[in-house]
Amino acid sequence: MNELRRDPITGRWNIVVLDKIADLSDFKSEPHPKDPQGCRFCYGNENDMPEIIAHRKYGPPNSPGWTVRVLPNKYPALRIEGELIKEGLGVFDMMTGVGAHEVIIDTPDHFRDMADLSYAEMEEVVWAYLARSIDLRRDKRFKYILIFKNYGESAGASLEHPHSQLIALPIVPKIVQEEIDGASKYFDYKERCVFCDMLRQEQMEKERIIYDGRYFTAFCPYVSRFSYEIWILPKKHQSDFALLQRDCVSCLAKALRDCLARMKGLLGDPSYNFIIHSSPINGHDREDYHWHIEIMPKLTKIAGFEWGSGFYINPVPPEIAAKNLLSVKLVEK
Amino acid sequence: MNELRRDPITGRWNIVVLDKIADLSDFKSEPHPKDPQGCRFCYGNENDMPEIIAHRKYGPPNSPGWTVRVLPNKYPALRIEGELIKEGLGVFDMMTGVGAHEVIIDTPDHFRDMADLSYAEMEEVVWAYLARSIDLRRDKRFKYILIFKNYGESAGASLEHPHSQLIALPIVPKIVQEEIDGASKYFDYKERCVFCDMLRQEQMEKERIIYDGRYFTAFCPYVSRFSYEIWILPKKHQSDFALLQRDCVSCLAKALRDCLARMKGLLGDPSYNFIIHSSPINGHDREDYHWHIEIMPKLTKIAGFEWGSGFYINPVPPEIAAKNLLSVKLVEK
Repeated sequence: MNELRRDPITGRWNIVVLDKIADLSDFKSEPHPKDPQGCRFCYGNENDMPEIIAHRKYGPPNSPGWTVRVLPNKYPALRIEGELIKEGLGVFDMMTGVGAHEVIIDTPDHFRDMADLSYAEMEEVVWAYLARSIDLRRDKRFKYILIFKNYGESAGASLEHPHSQLIALPIVPKIVQEEIDGASKYFDYKERCVFCDMLRQEQMEKERIIYDGRYFTAFCPYVSRFSYEIWILPKKHQSDFALLQRDCVSCLAKALRDCLARMKGLLGDPSYNFIIHSSPINGHDREDYHWHIEIMPKLTKIAGFEWGSGFYINPVPPEIAAKNLLSVKLVEK
Repeated sequence: MNELRRDPITGRWNIVVLDKIADLSDFKSEPHPKDPQGCRFCYGNENDMPEIIAHRKYGPPNSPGWTVRVLPNKYPALRIEGELIKEGLGVFDMMTGVGAHEVIIDTPDHFRDMADLSYAEMEEVVWAYLARSIDLRRDKRFKYILIFKNYGESAGASLEHPHSQLIALPIVPKIVQEEIDGASKYFDYKERCVFCDMLRQEQMEKERIIYDGRYFTAFCPYVSRFSYEIWILPKKHQSDFALLQRDCVSCLAKALRDCLARMKGLLGDPSYNFIIHSSPINGHDREDYHWHIEIMPKLTKIAGFEWGSGFYINPVPPEIAAKNLLSVKLVEK
């Protein structure tokens, strides 16, 4: 019989399929065409959009020689200019689309994704995330900074060149607020962080862990919504990604790169999203929330049941997902 | 500048794109292959799974001659047999997968979808939804009945033959609970149903309405998450789909069929989900909740931003969606 499992953070139930577990052949590989012709993110096209920051080995700003480059999004969901206006329209509320929308170009190489980066290259990407995250929180209009990556068409990526995105928002998004409300309710009752408790339990049970470094642990969560979902958590309690200490950056880069490389090695380059879940801006280091990264490979489609219930049906128990991911032989580089 | 709009029910903000509105050519049509070879839902294969109920023109049960047929799902997410066991596992909760999972075969014709049905055929499907909804609520283990349809691969459909699904759940799903909590908070404050207020405003503003019948209204909601999203609401307050009166069935069938036919006519047979949102079982006719149908064409992909924020970016303002949908010339049948 299948099993319903409840996420202790948000209270969401998911269905873990035990009756008819999907095996690797059930997941169709999606092609990821790579044609650098006309790519705005490759070397030589720096004039298309002036950079906000870049790490470079040589050359002046907005020229080749960079290793990671951050730009404003050419078609932003929210714009940095303009006044934040809020109005009521009868029963509805409206707000102007003020915010920041930036693109982090992960590497100058059009043909490699994050799973193929060296640890040193991955570290540079994490540094860029951190630098932008720290800089943008000085703008008082923003309440939340969301960093994420879409890889492949099923994950909503519209450009091939490896890149991540950052959106600064004038409100705390609902999903984050729900996590915070749930975690804070747990804290009120137990006086412990629910993520710390979850991490302890995963470390004790061991069967879902796929990375255990000095500062970070990665596991397939007991309540995975998606097949082969992976979470990365700092081992020491910390609520805000922007508080990440210098000496932890390389461990995070290694954890993220290794998780993505295991996914690619096992699942044949699946489309995926990852999202850094962090506490809202100007929250001091809250005791009740724990920042983390959620990696969600897009192997199955979201259907009416998920849309109507918020339940997810996961055809691969996370215990099996972790075992399979661990079987991948990694190339350290 | 883009606009943020807030759903008064759940408090969710969405981004409506005004800077770069998508036009019809921006949406790729998805092929819907139709091969009846080996289809378990076509005439002649009734022995594959005995029916729960069927409407038939001729013949004994489990033989051809039916117009609508309801079966247990061959690979159910939840099973009707077995005891409902709930356990704690450290920080997590677990429950056995008890429930009902049924398939409603909308028509014996493998090659037509709901958008192509006659009003009379569509009425039969609504009758089947209603009959199963009324029957299953007698099982005291169930708290919620979810009726939905997945059409096309992007919407998560795994079988070609036109069908809908019903899942009876031992708990009230999170998404429904959130809607109820939001609506009930609004009711506490205003002593009015938020859906009734929304309906009144849509009827007054008129620009998003695409169907206005005797008992039902359909519109592209002001806070559409998806391009060309459509909601159908009973005009008279009613919280539970199972309370639908006999004389309203044909109006609902017409509303649903016409909305789907407009979508198909305009958007070239897109994949879609629709979901009947209803109040939990054994709620009397609650004053604060209003059942409705949400139709969500799958024209864009959900990406990291949506997963991380719960915001949706909608590149077609609902005002334009409604205008375009209304331009479709319908065949009444």
